[in-house]
Amino acid sequence: MQKLVTFKEYTAVTPTAPISRNQHGFRAKCLQRLIRMGLPVPRTVALSFETVQAIAGGRMPDVARLLAGFGAAPLVSVRSSSQDPAWGGPNAVLNIGMNDARYAEFCETLGETAASALYLRFIQTYAVRAAHLDAALFDPGEEEGHAAVAAALRAYEAETESHFPQDPEEQLAGVLRSMARAWQSTSTRLLRQARGAPADAGLGLVVQEMALGVGAVESGAGIIQFIDPVSGKPQITGRYMSQSQGRDAVTQRERALFLTRDSRGASLEELCPDLFDELIAHGEACRSRLRDEMQLEFTIAAGRLAIIDAVIVPRSARASVQVVVALAQDDVITRSEALLRVPPRALNEVLHPQIDPATPRTRIVRGIAASPGAAAGKLVFSSTVAQAMAAQDEPCILVKRETSPEDVRGMHAARGVLTERGGITSHAAVIARGLGVPCVVGASELSIDKKARVMRTASGQVLREGDLVTIDGTSGEILAGVVPMLEPALDEAFETFLGWADEVRDIGIRVNADTPEDAQLASRFAAEGIGLCRTEHMFFAEDRLTAMRELIFADLPEDRADALAQLLPMQRADFTQIFRIMAGKPVCIRLFDPPLHEFLPHDRQGTLDLAEALNRPFSDVQRRIDSLREYNPMLGMRGVRLGLTVPEIYDMQARAIFEAALDASAGGDKPVVPEIMIPLVSACREVEIVTTRIEAVAHAVQAERGETLTYRIGVMVETPRAALRAADIVRFCHFLSFGTNDLTQMTYGLSRDDAGRFMASYVRQGVFPEDPFHTLDREGVGELLVLGAERGRKVRPDVVLSICGEHGGNSESIAFCRDAGFDYVSCSPYRVPLARLAAAQIALNSADPT
Amino acid sequence: MQKLVTFKEYTAVTPTAPISRNQHGFRAKCLQRLIRMGLPVPRTVALSFETVQAIAGGRMPDVARLLAGFGAAPLVSVRSSSQDPAWGGPNAVLNIGMNDARYAEFCETLGETAASALYLRFIQTYAVRAAHLDAALFDPGEEEGHAAVAAALRAYEAETESHFPQDPEEQLAGVLRSMARAWQSTSTRLLRQARGAPADAGLGLVVQEMALGVGAVESGAGIIQFIDPVSGKPQITGRYMSQSQGRDAVTQRERALFLTRDSRGASLEELCPDLFDELIAHGEACRSRLRDEMQLEFTIAAGRLAIIDAVIVPRSARASVQVVVALAQDDVITRSEALLRVPPRALNEVLHPQIDPATPRTRIVRGIAASPGAAAGKLVFSSTVAQAMAAQDEPCILVKRETSPEDVRGMHAARGVLTERGGITSHAAVIARGLGVPCVVGASELSIDKKARVMRTASGQVLREGDLVTIDGTSGEILAGVVPMLEPALDEAFETFLGWADEVRDIGIRVNADTPEDAQLASRFAAEGIGLCRTEHMFFAEDRLTAMRELIFADLPEDRADALAQLLPMQRADFTQIFRIMAGKPVCIRLFDPPLHEFLPHDRQGTLDLAEALNRPFSDVQRRIDSLREYNPMLGMRGVRLGLTVPEIYDMQARAIFEAALDASAGGDKPVVPEIMIPLVSACREVEIVTTRIEAVAHAVQAERGETLTYRIGVMVETPRAALRAADIVRFCHFLSFGTNDLTQMTYGLSRDDAGRFMASYVRQGVFPEDPFHTLDREGVGELLVLGAERGRKVRPDVVLSICGEHGGNSESIAFCRDAGFDYVSCSPYRVPLARLAAAQIALNSADPT
Repeated sequence: MQKLVTFKEYTAVTPTAPISRNQHGFRAKCLQRLIRMGLPVPRTVALSFETVQAIAGGRMPDVARLLAGFGAAPLVSVRSSSQDPAWGGPNAVLNIGMNDARYAEFCETLGETAASALYLRFIQTYAVRAAHLDAALFDPGEEEGHAAVAAALRAYEAETESHFPQDPEEQLAGVLRSMARAWQSTSTRLLRQARGAPADAGLGLVVQEMALGVGAVESGAGIIQFIDPVSGKPQITGRYMSQSQGRDAVTQRERALFLTRDSRGASLEELCPDLFDELIAHGEACRSRLRDEMQLEFTIAAGRLAIIDAVIVPRSARASVQVVVALAQDDVITRSEALLRVPPRALNEVLHPQIDPATPRTRIVRGIAASPGAAAGKLVFSSTVAQAMAAQDEPCILVKRETSPEDVRGMHAARGVLTERGGITSHAAVIARGLGVPCVVGASELSIDKKARVMRTASGQVLREGDLVTIDGTSGEILAGVVPMLEPALDEAFETFLGWADEVRDIGIRVNADTPEDAQLASRFAAEGIGLCRTEHMFFAEDRLTAMRELIFADLPEDRADALAQLLPMQRADFTQIFRIMAGKPVCIRLFDPPLHEFLPHDRQGTLDLAEALNRPFSDVQRRIDSLREYNPMLGMRGVRLGLTVPEIYDMQARAIFEAALDASAGGDKPVVPEIMIPLVSACREVEIVTTRIEAVAHAVQAERGETLTYRIGVMVETPRAALRAADIVRFCHFLSFGTNDLTQMTYGLSRDDAGRFMASYVRQGVFPEDPFHTLDREGVGELLVLGAERGRKVRPDVVLSICGEHGGNSESIAFCRDAGFDYVSCSPYRVPLARLAAAQIALNSADPT
Repeated sequence: MQKLVTFKEYTAVTPTAPISRNQHGFRAKCLQRLIRMGLPVPRTVALSFETVQAIAGGRMPDVARLLAGFGAAPLVSVRSSSQDPAWGGPNAVLNIGMNDARYAEFCETLGETAASALYLRFIQTYAVRAAHLDAALFDPGEEEGHAAVAAALRAYEAETESHFPQDPEEQLAGVLRSMARAWQSTSTRLLRQARGAPADAGLGLVVQEMALGVGAVESGAGIIQFIDPVSGKPQITGRYMSQSQGRDAVTQRERALFLTRDSRGASLEELCPDLFDELIAHGEACRSRLRDEMQLEFTIAAGRLAIIDAVIVPRSARASVQVVVALAQDDVITRSEALLRVPPRALNEVLHPQIDPATPRTRIVRGIAASPGAAAGKLVFSSTVAQAMAAQDEPCILVKRETSPEDVRGMHAARGVLTERGGITSHAAVIARGLGVPCVVGASELSIDKKARVMRTASGQVLREGDLVTIDGTSGEILAGVVPMLEPALDEAFETFLGWADEVRDIGIRVNADTPEDAQLASRFAAEGIGLCRTEHMFFAEDRLTAMRELIFADLPEDRADALAQLLPMQRADFTQIFRIMAGKPVCIRLFDPPLHEFLPHDRQGTLDLAEALNRPFSDVQRRIDSLREYNPMLGMRGVRLGLTVPEIYDMQARAIFEAALDASAGGDKPVVPEIMIPLVSACREVEIVTTRIEAVAHAVQAERGETLTYRIGVMVETPRAALRAADIVRFCHFLSFGTNDLTQMTYGLSRDDAGRFMASYVRQGVFPEDPFHTLDREGVGELLVLGAERGRKVRPDVVLSICGEHGGNSESIAFCRDAGFDYVSCSPYRVPLARLAAAQIALNSADPT
């Protein structure tokens, strides 16, 4: 039993009709705009979300009255119109109103082929949609014309045991009902929720008079847009096909015409120059009035142009940047609007090579997308081999169970990194993002045999060292062979765009950069300084590792001094280079942080080699290695604890920093003001002691060189206790930088390296709303940040506050830090552009809260 | 040049003189009290701290005037009198005033032997003290009488190139100066600071007329006290020696008389019955007026009794308890005073066997005193051997590099545990304290060869399996051989004493008890309930470990269910037993907490055995073991994370608890209200999910059994985030128990197992004022406790708050928790008596803030 609805059932779309996106959807609103602009849009009626919901609930509007508006023999289409095009909706249904009578009439007027195509299209769509039949039943196969139509009608009758509906009202009601219900099915609801739709997102429908693309006078349909969807550069693209409907010109591309004159074949421009010009004019009007690059669906109905639909051109991330910059430069939109239109994450695609979306993918294995971008190369199973291949300019992809600090060089040498274990903030993931190397982690279905240099997939596929693969760190996939890629596009538009971002943002963006190469990258991405320079990576190079190990094994203070004397000039040289590259911008150097055992071999052979190198008995070396082993290295003797236990290390580093600062300043460059950061602090006395020693070193260096140094000392707040005791701590330092990685680990009591085994399931079950290593936990870690900042600032109002670590480049974290009054955030080099944009958007959104 | 001091230089000690302990020291004050009581104390003059400090600074008081008070031919002693007897002070100097003239006179009146003894004693003391000569120079050797005196005077002259001073004023000035300066030497200052003295602690001096213990009529000196210093029971002990001075009767015991009639020899009681009665009366007066058991130093000078000094009897901890109980029962002191007089830590000595303090010690190695008490046994190097020896009733001491959960049974079997690594809260230390087994950890100078079953000390000593040693967990020493011991004394006085404590304390004391044996102990120590029952220890027994491993390797839910079905009755039986023992007292059971890898073998052989037992390929087993390995097990998949990942485990445990509660209640015992605690929570949703499942199990068990259950669910607050989010969390539970061990680890970012390597040095340098695993960190961890408690209570005013973990038994922590309004603290069984006493003292001190 159909009930009649009692509210406004539908609205004819006219320039003044009360059509809104919130009630009728994007398509209805867009069509109204086109109508207001005077574009030749066929008669259109909009059904609101409320109406469609009522239809799904069994209350059908008065379709007879609705159809009456379309004339005596109505022929209409129905299109979906949800609030956001990204949320999807059922596909369009064309030619509603076709029945045996119209068919016979069209056979007369348009010919049997055209008429049959129209009727067949409707029968098939209706059968599938409204009667839920299998599309294959309506494949005309070899048959054409009358025979094909008759076969389709017979098939319908056989399956449904009823005649194909002839009454346009019944047809329309069937279509509306099926589309309304399709929107409510569980699978489509989940799909659109995954795309960000709310649970109660509504569907609107648009009923439009058919502009027939078939007929005697030139008739057909096509699609036009005015940019290249990959580059975003101006270019008319699309196709037109005579005697076609809807998007046939695109789906049957080889049979369609080009739009503009083209050496490869006929074009609409040549076929119908007037209509072509009209179309171009409409396109230009759309761009300036709808304030974006639009794709128009048009029909030529018996020589007259009709604009059926307009949607925003789907485009690549790099095209997005190109388009918004061009629109702003043409004063179509403001710079602010340009900045707000590009989601920061989209910049990843601009910064890294991407797999050409047009390429088919043969996936070998899937993991967690840990560092964006794509790369191809030969599989290797050890960092040593990776370095050897890099030395021969042979691209390779490093595969490891998991990575450790001694793999950093190998990761640098590789084009991409794949690990079996670990999560989004595992060692591999963090380092890869820092290096800008594509990385997939947690590919748990893999089974790696390092010795045999073989890996096996869940499906039993075996890959050996040297096999060519492509890694897609954006999607988390490993593909077979070398796949075509799009190169990064750090072009003029990109620079312009981020320049605009810098003009509006009001929080500093620094970079985490450990090496001169990183510092170069930082300059390229216009970071305002280095927020975190981890010095330990400098110790993993071959020559330094030896000195480091000598230091660890030194029994006597003299031996220790010898080892440090070897390391001093190397550190100084690193710092000098970094200071020169940063040219006066601030550089915040974190003192030595990792536990000593990270510098020792993990296997018997390594230990044997080391024993030989040190000329000590194997058992001694083994004993020392054993004694340094820790149950929970994360919570062990590292950071300032090591700094206080072996104070000579920090003394050496402070000296290297100060001497480098003077050397770099001496070259005529801007004076360097180094910032020295103490890691893993949990008590203010740690800061007091280290600060005193650093000051003594500074005095000594100044006296030796007869020059004056300016420097700042600060604390990396990584333990909950350091945040709680910030008021004490700032009495001994100038700045606090919150290391949110470790702080998250300790606040949750959760090791990021071990969290991978259950994090996905935790997030899925909603135990954690998000992975706190990925999105800053505002409630817990965030409270400690705010609390630490407030307490610190109360005692020392000029204390400089920042965060460094993985959260630094994240939009939510930047907003959080800005609200908390932080001075800057610091993130890995490749996240700097994202952070600059995100910060700009946050500033814009908070200035104009619409 | 001596300057005269301008303040009150000295004070004659009379009943009304302004003598105070704060200005003149304990001895001066005590002597004044004796004088007030009318005891025959020789004339005494007190020098204040200020005077003595002036003397050390070179300003000597008017000694002539001082000595004038002692008659024409003064003969005096000087004794030190610091504020607290425990702080020490220079030894007494007797016979000041002896010179050639007095010597000649005494030769006449007392005889040559006595006169020579007096003069020789003074020459020697003076030479050593005031002239800093070697005592050996003044050893009379074979010589006696005049010859010995002449030799001593010659020796003095030869060394100092001056005559031995003859002027009593010069002598006294020399003695005063040397004693004043001795107090200020660096080594004595450090020594007393180690005993708790402030840096500026003063020294007073007491100048007293000599009561000569030599002479014709009965003369001599002795010491008397009225209790046995080890047991504290009434018993007159001491010695008297005719013709002696000071403490000669004690140092030359074999030549002295007994005090009371004694079958072994002559006694003072027989020799001078009247004087003996007088002495007893003085003793009784002292006990009731000085309100403690005093040791009196007395002299019989020519038949007349003089009381020279009185000090509180040095006594064992068990004697302390005995004495204060007796004093309170005799109404000499109040019960409150009795409670306040015994430091809680002293109870350790009462609870555990102690090495007889009279025994000489041959130390093999020293470590950190981790669990008090002493034990002797044969060295063993593995838990298996320890269990085998225990099965044969052969006492053994288990030595390990470090212990892990699979050693718990071996630790239980051993009489004592020694480890090379670890700190005060390492696994070995925590478990040993829980078991009440003496334990020394962090004996880093040891080198253990487990395979060879040998350990080497730093001095090169080699000990083998089977060698007998004694472990002293109170001092942290390992001694050679079997050393005599005092057994624990949980006697009537002890019970009475703690009964009084329970009457005044106002915070609950529960016990951490994991097994029925622990529960028995808990009952014996009168804990009010179990605050923490760790269920995982139940899984390490042989038969359970097998089922546990089957669970870990179960691929299918059915296999998992099978393994859990084996574990269920065992768990239920454990809980039933514990509930029965606790007889209606609350039992708080923590759900399974450790990471699964703790249940897997750590070596190749174990893995081979396991593979065979499970009938699986070695490589599969190895792979599974590898995959469960964690970088930071403390921060890994354990606690509620495991509970949510393998929810069947908590389901099984909840069922075992509920069924056991019904079984135990059914026996006619008091109804059991089990408390179920969820470990390692960091988000409230974890609590919500687990609570829902537990409630479902409760419903099922109630339906099956047709009985009603009462139970409580709570959260163990171990992560900083759980404390911060307490307001959310209490919405889903009834109680919060702060696990301060883990909370400390996470707040500091410091693993207790790894902290041992630098904690001692950190505390020494004052980086941490104390080891936060030992003494609750009020500033950091404490803030989280207060914050969590406040937030929890705000949302749920009746939420029950407590702490469990190592800090629970600690005085400062109990005070902290009481201030924060906590309901109870829970600690290991052997700390319960300490905690009861500490809580009582806190209540008393806060009621009467004097």
